[in-house]
Amino acid sequence: MGEPFVYEVQLRWSDEDRMGHLNNTRYLTFAEDARTRWFAMVPAYDGMTHASSIVARMEVDYIRQVRTADNDWLKVVNTVIGIGRSSVRLQQEIQRMSGEVVNRVIATQVNFDYDHNSSLPWSDTQRNWLQQFAATAPVVGRSVNAGKA
Amino acid sequence: MGEPFVYEVQLRWSDEDRMGHLNNTRYLTFAEDARTRWFAMVPAYDGMTHASSIVARMEVDYIRQVRTADNDWLKVVNTVIGIGRSSVRLQQEIQRMSGEVVNRVIATQVNFDYDHNSSLPWSDTQRNWLQQFAATAPVVGRSVNAGKA
Amino acid sequence: MGEPFVYEVQLRWSDEDRMGHLNNTRYLTFAEDARTRWFAMVPAYDGMTHASSIVARMEVDYIRQVRTADNDWLKVVNTVIGIGRSSVRLQQEIQRMSGEVVNRVIATQVNFDYDHNSSLPWSDTQRNWLQQFAATAPVVGRSVNAGKA
Amino acid sequence: MGEPFVYEVQLRWSDEDRMGHLNNTRYLTFAEDARTRWFAMVPAYDGMTHASSIVARMEVDYIRQVRTADNDWLKVVNTVIGIGRSSVRLQQEIQRMSGEVVNRVIATQVNFDYDHNSSLPWSDTQRNWLQQFAATAPVVGRSVNAGKA
Repeated sequence: MGEPFVYEVQLRWSDEDRMGHLNNTRYLTFAEDARTRWFAMVPAYDGMTHASSIVARMEVDYIRQVRTADNDWLKVVNTVIGIGRSSVRLQQEIQRMSGEVVNRVIATQVNFDYDHNSSLPWSDTQRNWLQQFAATAPVVGRSVNAGKA
Repeated sequence: MGEPFVYEVQLRWSDEDRMGHLNNTRYLTFAEDARTRWFAMVPAYDGMTHASSIVARMEVDYIRQVRTADNDWLKVVNTVIGIGRSSVRLQQEIQRMSGEVVNRVIATQVNFDYDHNSSLPWSDTQRNWLQQFAATAPVVGRSVNAGKA
Repeated sequence: MGEPFVYEVQLRWSDEDRMGHLNNTRYLTFAEDARTRWFAMVPAYDGMTHASSIVARMEVDYIRQVRTADNDWLKVVNTVIGIGRSSVRLQQEIQRMSGEVVNRVIATQVNFDYDHNSSLPWSDTQRNWLQQFAATAPVVGRSVNAGKA
Repeated sequence: MGEPFVYEVQLRWSDEDRMGHLNNTRYLTFAEDARTRWFAMVPAYDGMTHASSIVARMEVDYIRQVRTADNDWLKVVNTVIGIGRSSVRLQQEIQRMSGEVVNRVIATQVNFDYDHNSSLPWSDTQRNWLQQFAATAPVVGRSVNAGKA
């Protein structure tokens, strides 16, 4: 259906740990950077200045080891794979610039109202915005069941 | 059955990000530190100097937000929840010192032979060692199916 | 004269980079942690809830390489080596637990008023507090000339 | 005389700490990345496959605070400001893309022979290579006296 949101990340020398590969935490950093840029574009809920969301769950598959010596850049290819009442399930595929997948992050984000410290249902506008990024039609309208959806 | 392996981690000021909470990647760093100390004690496979293992998958549930201002230390409570032919599934519960659970990491580690760049079945000695840390009797002898076990 | 403020830091597996030693940035992280705890005790300026300070300059001497395999902990030994009108010059010696010095950070901090976005002269109470940590009588009452004092 | 080596760094969301500015350690990370790319081009000493160098000293001036919200990229402008027998003194100016200087790192690097664990005098070829990056003619042939040159 939609188009993925693609964000390119520049690797740093210190992303590698003493095993000579990207440290396992870095993939979450790259996913965070992609998500932050992507979700900065979520249209505001009526009356809210900013839509905020928080991480509820991450599933991370380590597929290929990456060395910074061979890769200056990786790209994060982001799609929406499930929309809940106040949550969203994102696939963030981390690829070499050639397109080879090296890591796959599934992130469950919850739309969050920091003023009331509670989750916030998506508005229709927000829901429509999210659907643009669904590679295939996501399951809409039921609760995203983290880890099982 | 067994006893968990408990590792205490000292928080750092810079573990907090600009949202004023521990950054989402830090829980994986704490889990890595606990796992590294824990798995340094895995008995060597016959003829190998060191047993090595690599991360295949992580599932991370963000349960409570943590501020460094309120917490100098967290503890990682580690148990074995599944043993495969050459892999192991670990639960790494991250708790405040009071015992309140703030994050739960399920890590799938694969016993790895860096010389031959391939996975390596656990020896009986290693398997027995792992079973000591099983909070309840783990399922043994079948392949750990990452994310579905 | 005074007593140093000593802060012990727990090392993390990922503090080592691919050269197999603590990454060069980590010493500043350890110094930051020590400084943050230490300066949380600075008595408030009259009418201010919190005294805040910002880093103006760092000089870092890399004396010994450190491996996390051999060292679980390091300690930061902090003394005041110069007090200016609104700044302070700190020596933060990073030592193995045995006392061997591995790194020396000289930090120039400026007492800062975030409300007015400007530096703030130390009060007498603050100045007396700082003098407690002077290993030898610091030069008081003139401007700390970063990098030349 | 020569041309600086310019390296652009992409900022990450997590580079900001809870004060809402780039954490003080990040400038050293950016300097490290620039230096690593730059010094990967140092011509090998006769008979050596790679020239290696280690950090002996850093002086860091914090000039402007930087927020990632306003800056996606910074650039590191690198020049040689002193060449010793086996060391080199580098100025690594960190600038906004507009050219505004936000941080200045002076790094003293020592040419290092990891096989013999000792410093290694620069060859003439290496010395000539370094001189290309001298903004003004550097002082050559005497020992770089870290912190005083």
